[in-house]
Amino acid sequence: MLESRPMEPWNWRVALVRPRNPLNVGAAARAMANFGFRDLVVVNPYEPTWQEARSAVGAGDLVRAARAVPTLLEGVGDAALVLGTTSGSRRHLARELIPLAELPSWLETRVPPQTRRRVRRAALLFGSEKTGLSNEDLSHCHGLLRIPTSPACPSMNLGQAVAVCCYELARQGLAAGRPPGARLHRSDPASAQSLAHLFARATNILDAAGYLKPKSRHATLLKLRQLLLELGLTNYDVRVLGGVLAQIEWKLGVSDH
Amino acid sequence: MLESRPMEPWNWRVALVRPRNPLNVGAAARAMANFGFRDLVVVNPYEPTWQEARSAVGAGDLVRAARAVPTLLEGVGDAALVLGTTSGSRRHLARELIPLAELPSWLETRVPPQTRRRVRRAALLFGSEKTGLSNEDLSHCHGLLRIPTSPACPSMNLGQAVAVCCYELARQGLAAGRPPGARLHRSDPASAQSLAHLFARATNILDAAGYLKPKSRHATLLKLRQLLLELGLTNYDVRVLGGVLAQIEWKLGVSDH
Repeated sequence: MLESRPMEPWNWRVALVRPRNPLNVGAAARAMANFGFRDLVVVNPYEPTWQEARSAVGAGDLVRAARAVPTLLEGVGDAALVLGTTSGSRRHLARELIPLAELPSWLETRVPPQTRRRVRRAALLFGSEKTGLSNEDLSHCHGLLRIPTSPACPSMNLGQAVAVCCYELARQGLAAGRPPGARLHRSDPASAQSLAHLFARATNILDAAGYLKPKSRHATLLKLRQLLLELGLTNYDVRVLGGVLAQIEWKLGVSDH
Repeated sequence: MLESRPMEPWNWRVALVRPRNPLNVGAAARAMANFGFRDLVVVNPYEPTWQEARSAVGAGDLVRAARAVPTLLEGVGDAALVLGTTSGSRRHLARELIPLAELPSWLETRVPPQTRRRVRRAALLFGSEKTGLSNEDLSHCHGLLRIPTSPACPSMNLGQAVAVCCYELARQGLAAGRPPGARLHRSDPASAQSLAHLFARATNILDAAGYLKPKSRHATLLKLRQLLLELGLTNYDVRVLGGVLAQIEWKLGVSDH
């Protein structure tokens, strides 16, 4: 049984991206508290939604402690693992979907064994009620988690989707009881923030090299970012590659870091 | 892994007992549809709640097809298995709680192997938002399913509790895709309705025999009903026992069936 296998713990953050309904923010927070999760961030919320959610009668400690941030990267930049959630009803840049119940085995193949004993930050993204996660959001994800809903009624209520995911992470023993250590380990997966810096450097070079055409620039960058994330780079890898790219930038005369 | 074991399918009904918030009725229905469940009954609802839930914009087919009934027995009388749900935060007549993730192994010990291949009706009860299931409701249950919430925040939102349970039943492969057959099998577990008839007969005899004292009558009956349910009687057992009790009633001169 899944439960009996030793699992690496993760410190999970739930990120609600552009939520519209204040009731859903409160419901997501309550479900998190039900299953022992505490770290909530709300990305680019519709301002009245956020104000109403915070001031609602019965808004728990968790909502009051939550942060609102303007961009996804500010919300989850420190995470070594970013997973989007989806019902699998829309096309997602032709990406593999991880069935929710199979997350532990996916993590085993994805994360180097020697780093499994440490607690690291992971983020779970939930899109807005109407439009879900955008392709831009998805391109920041290391993987997409699929909640196995029925094809006849695939789209879940936001608060209920959070409840099912939190229940399942707790059941699988993937949630850590203690906060992650601050120290960086070279064999740990690189954070989203450091990968973003690396990617900005690469983009700078590709622009300078004329690789990116104006018309297809955005779509090409989304694909390349996804490719970068799927490499599963460690902190050490990022340091080495960053040095390589800095050298190329210098050679091309586009050093601005 | 749980998923790979062959499981007996059940045809599940969700019963919401005395719900107060129309939004929760709609949310429960949506979660059911998300995971392929269709059979919803609402027991003794507050009337405005029920009217509002039915007439809500976006109320799905499932809510429109749902029945409202005045008593629990009318809602789940045809079920061979009735399970209450709880967060485990209240005392429940000192009953054993089945952890949600362990339902398959509980069913294996509870249901005779020769009946496992047929699809039978089961009901899952959810109590009202404020008070949960009453002791009266719980005495109709064969078992109590515990959703493993955190002791610090045990009480779940109704719609989210339904979502987590439906997800988990589907994940465990316990939900049937086809409706149950109408024919009774003698080795099948007896329905709640036929057990209720048997229990009414037994109560009649106990009253006539002076076993039930006015002050403790209600509490004693709850305990006895629970005991009867835990015997796991089959249709055949109920027919035989019914004959026995009828004979005793006749002897005591209290035959009114």
